[in-house]
Amino acid sequence: MSVLSNIRIVLVEPRYSGNIGSVCRAMANMGISDLTLVAPRVTDGWEEGERMACHANELLRGRRECATLEEAVGDCAAVAGATARLGLYRQHVRTPRELAPELLQRAATGRVALLFGREDNGLGNDEIARCTHLLRIPTGPDYISLNLAQAVMICCYELFVAEGSYEAPDEKSAPVEARQRERLQKLWRETMLMIGFMKDDKADHMMQGFQRIFSRGVRTADDAHIMMGVARQTQWAARRQPKR
Amino acid sequence: MSVLSNIRIVLVEPRYSGNIGSVCRAMANMGISDLTLVAPRVTDGWEEGERMACHANELLRGRRECATLEEAVGDCAAVAGATARLGLYRQHVRTPRELAPELLQRAATGRVALLFGREDNGLGNDEIARCTHLLRIPTGPDYISLNLAQAVMICCYELFVAEGSYEAPDEKSAPVEARQRERLQKLWRETMLMIGFMKDDKADHMMQGFQRIFSRGVRTADDAHIMMGVARQTQWAARRQPKR
Repeated sequence: MSVLSNIRIVLVEPRYSGNIGSVCRAMANMGISDLTLVAPRVTDGWEEGERMACHANELLRGRRECATLEEAVGDCAAVAGATARLGLYRQHVRTPRELAPELLQRAATGRVALLFGREDNGLGNDEIARCTHLLRIPTGPDYISLNLAQAVMICCYELFVAEGSYEAPDEKSAPVEARQRERLQKLWRETMLMIGFMKDDKADHMMQGFQRIFSRGVRTADDAHIMMGVARQTQWAARRQPKR
Repeated sequence: MSVLSNIRIVLVEPRYSGNIGSVCRAMANMGISDLTLVAPRVTDGWEEGERMACHANELLRGRRECATLEEAVGDCAAVAGATARLGLYRQHVRTPRELAPELLQRAATGRVALLFGREDNGLGNDEIARCTHLLRIPTGPDYISLNLAQAVMICCYELFVAEGSYEAPDEKSAPVEARQRERLQKLWRETMLMIGFMKDDKADHMMQGFQRIFSRGVRTADDAHIMMGVARQTQWAARRQPKR
């Protein structure tokens, strides 16, 4: 059971179902599934929400709705509120990346709520007062207010990455070994001399150019096979050509 | 001039203007402003796009539209394509966090495109073939496909954070110094003895409890002033109380 199952996303008085649906999809992408809405003010129906949730619409339908924030976070060991605004009592904000390890640690033994405010107005001071942690997402100075679902995504993403269970896809081909590089260089030298791309006295110099390109570009055994094949085929074609 | 001004977001055949608007807002949040659309298939008008772009609607209106991908990225020194799908020729994907430093380095001397595919279908193999880098956003295994604007946000966010110009808001109050902690502990010991919270023979033990709480909770000089004020006021109130 992942520690992420102890993470709860709490939206305070969200207004647009499309945003709520996008929040669901972001949560599902990042392996988080506990969604609680506090006094939602949705008036546009849930059609757009279903559309934006896409394959996360079970998560949308499984949402919990509470009348008050107390009810939504009453069982939580930590409550982290997201705020873009600064000001009195908001100066100890930290970035989601900084806070993620601590929040995961808390989530190992208790429930952790991430709290997001209204689309137009964020969290009020009375709500901030209930937070044990404050989050602020880094932004440029010209536009600091994120779309609600985007803010949720970044926080979920940082928790997911910090949790560390993501496995990078395997590069299936083995890395090139030095002796294979050696063979590749030798074959190219032979071939480039053969086709008259360089003269013997310039060969060392030119080979440094290939060395530079191959050391950056040829990373795997597959890459090396391709470039050795090119050289062999070039030799074959050069031999086949009628002498002028 | 920030290196981020050399980052171009390229959307290939996007269909929903709301997504494009959300992309604009995400870009503006992260200090990126060059948006190019390749053969957009928007049929729902731009109203939803304007609404989702919010205060980034100048960026939306300033978008460039190209008929072909070649035209959109022809002047770019690096082209990083985002793909959720794996498979042949997509196995050398790296995460946006891994790639960000290299892409910023490229952007220092040339333009760098981040390429995002269709909402329903991503990037095709012919488009992947034009990429110098491939990006894959870490997700849980159950739902790997991100909303277009969410994918753009995470990539822009990682570039913005890696670029390093974000300044965390200042904690205005200085950290507590050890001697101030000492004074706080002394004042609390005195006060707790005075009000009969603990007896003299248990004082050392109890004070370790306060030490634990204060070392975690009292971080700044302001925090220390508050807790010292509490002790002083408690002493005052205890003295004022009529003897029983």
